[in-house]
Amino acid sequence: MDATPRMPDVVDLTKALIAAESVTPALGRVFDVLEAALIPLGFMVERFIEGEAPDGPVENLLAVRGSGAPHFAFAGHLDVVPPGAGWTSDAFEPQIRGGLLHGRGAVDMKGAIAAFVAAAARTPPTGTTSLIITGDEEGPAIFGTRALIERMAERGLKPDFCLVGEPTSAQRLGDMIKIGRRGSVNIWIDVPGKQGHVAYPQLADNPIPKLVAILAEIDAIILDTGTEWFQPSNIEATDITVGNPATNVIPAQASARLSIRYNDLHRGDDLAARIEAIVHRHAPAATMIARVSGDAFVTAPGALSTLIGDAIEARLGLRPELSTTGGTSDARFLSRLCPVVEFGLVNATMHKLDEAVAVEDLAALADIYADILTRVAST
Amino acid sequence: MDATPRMPDVVDLTKALIAAESVTPALGRVFDVLEAALIPLGFMVERFIEGEAPDGPVENLLAVRGSGAPHFAFAGHLDVVPPGAGWTSDAFEPQIRGGLLHGRGAVDMKGAIAAFVAAAARTPPTGTTSLIITGDEEGPAIFGTRALIERMAERGLKPDFCLVGEPTSAQRLGDMIKIGRRGSVNIWIDVPGKQGHVAYPQLADNPIPKLVAILAEIDAIILDTGTEWFQPSNIEATDITVGNPATNVIPAQASARLSIRYNDLHRGDDLAARIEAIVHRHAPAATMIARVSGDAFVTAPGALSTLIGDAIEARLGLRPELSTTGGTSDARFLSRLCPVVEFGLVNATMHKLDEAVAVEDLAALADIYADILTRVAST
Ligand SMILES: [Zn+2]
Ligand SMILES: [Zn+2]
Repeated sequence: MDATPRMPDVVDLTKALIAAESVTPALGRVFDVLEAALIPLGFMVERFIEGEAPDGPVENLLAVRGSGAPHFAFAGHLDVVPPGAGWTSDAFEPQIRGGLLHGRGAVDMKGAIAAFVAAAARTPPTGTTSLIITGDEEGPAIFGTRALIERMAERGLKPDFCLVGEPTSAQRLGDMIKIGRRGSVNIWIDVPGKQGHVAYPQLADNPIPKLVAILAEIDAIILDTGTEWFQPSNIEATDITVGNPATNVIPAQASARLSIRYNDLHRGDDLAARIEAIVHRHAPAATMIARVSGDAFVTAPGALSTLIGDAIEARLGLRPELSTTGGTSDARFLSRLCPVVEFGLVNATMHKLDEAVAVEDLAALADIYADILTRVAST
Repeated sequence: MDATPRMPDVVDLTKALIAAESVTPALGRVFDVLEAALIPLGFMVERFIEGEAPDGPVENLLAVRGSGAPHFAFAGHLDVVPPGAGWTSDAFEPQIRGGLLHGRGAVDMKGAIAAFVAAAARTPPTGTTSLIITGDEEGPAIFGTRALIERMAERGLKPDFCLVGEPTSAQRLGDMIKIGRRGSVNIWIDVPGKQGHVAYPQLADNPIPKLVAILAEIDAIILDTGTEWFQPSNIEATDITVGNPATNVIPAQASARLSIRYNDLHRGDDLAARIEAIVHRHAPAATMIARVSGDAFVTAPGALSTLIGDAIEARLGLRPELSTTGGTSDARFLSRLCPVVEFGLVNATMHKLDEAVAVEDLAALADIYADILTRVAST
């Protein structure tokens, strides 16, 4: 028997994960690859499948090594967005050209998962280390990280710190980490009216002036002027639809769509209620639908962000910006458990054709993740 | 030689005109039918074709009998709107069922033209009688009545009174005549912006709030409270288009369409200039297009409307309402020459499937038109 754990190479593992095609929602083979890498490192692996079509089935993987404090969790996803047409080489046949490893998921975020596995392989176990890996972050995310959090609660697992491996670097590796994210709510407003001829307006009920009054009142709202860690919250009207081709007809219906990105002074449900009150004051018969993608959260700068910043600076000589910009991520769910910081590869090619990661960035990220584990162990 | 003019039957002539298919813009055969009916009645007939595709070619017909005062003109159109699918009998094969003569143009307005020809046939010529008949009233009307008015000026012809045979009756023949029409202007507003991601609004320029501000200001305008002969002028927003399917994208463009129906307190060009000032105050880069279909006009109740009302009452025992409602007609051009009143058949089926006129209405209308000619002759 060989007592030495096999040390996975970060580039080889990234390649193997890319080659296991896993357009969202993902399950099966790509999880086999990850499990095979984790088992020799002493992780207990639990895999489970949740949900039905169309939002599922989704596979999730929970891996735990060691016990006791501190419990450090690494979170991420193995699903990828569809590749689209026009790649230079096949999106699921990893290929290194000019120091760049190409393939769908290279930066978002199979490369980061491979880096964390490589880091765990060479870091002596201390306290608890876990991986929280879902097959649905890019999709509706209904059966993904939320289900993993439930499963962890059932197993009595509660992390003290969580690192999400999303590609947060902007221009070069380590220049930015995310300590929070704004919340996001999309709202659809439908105002009904009564169709008629413009020559006889008294026989019709034009929904457009009502919708215009609603949108004018909403446009005048100043939600806040920003906070220490967030830019000001913002409401954008993103679409208006009437669809009336006839110049002499008053339309029967008018609708609009809003997108609100908001900081931690607000909750999505409260914002939706506030908009709904405006809508119904101007148009009592109107209908409104609101979908909250996730409320805002922030991990105030402190032990975790400092520790990660130190590890980045030690390896790369630069101090990361602490940011709360950008879209949503699964950190919105994990932030309910413990302090969460996101740090991963350069996001310039994520979700694009010819997604690629610098091979040297993969090595550096594995080094930094390993240093983070070492630093956490000594807290 | 037969010295007695052939007396055309109003129903036969209506049928012959319907059978000569003449979807707008019209020329040729349908004019041959009318000319053949007019020549034996002593009319001098001049026909001419104007314009090119797509708004032409359009045929126009000017017919004149007699000379001197009073000059009474009858105006109308031989073109019809497309029949559409679903007629009970062929739209261009006139058929009488249950006392109703069916066919495209039966009420709008081949039946009225036939009635006027029948009326002229049995009324002894006094002063000047003319017919001003175009092949394009239902279309853009660029090469139609405007060209006829020019041609009349070249011939030194200036009517003292003009009767337009449009179907003005609402519930029963003679219940309504039109002494004026509102003006109409359609306006298209395009507001450009700069596309971007809703997470980064500072990098984008959303055109929707500008368009909303424009429409809100326009909606607050009260043009007037009506006049003695007109209902209040009215602005309707009839369409808004953004066409942005992506919930997280700020759109690059937003547009709206307005329809203004206005009375004789306003001119279309002035209204367009007023709207344009509002548009450019909120969105200097916006573009606006205005199309004036025709300014408002009114023939104040007087000799002509009283004479027509008397003729209607004598034959049918009801007094017509003097109205200025409804869309535009060629009366907008003719009103620049002389007093104009519109009176014709019941408009319930105009522009619809199974357009039909009551055979007894055709006979009554011919009687009333003949009485009008007689009364005019004695003024
Ligand atoms: Zn991702
Ligand atoms: Zn007509």
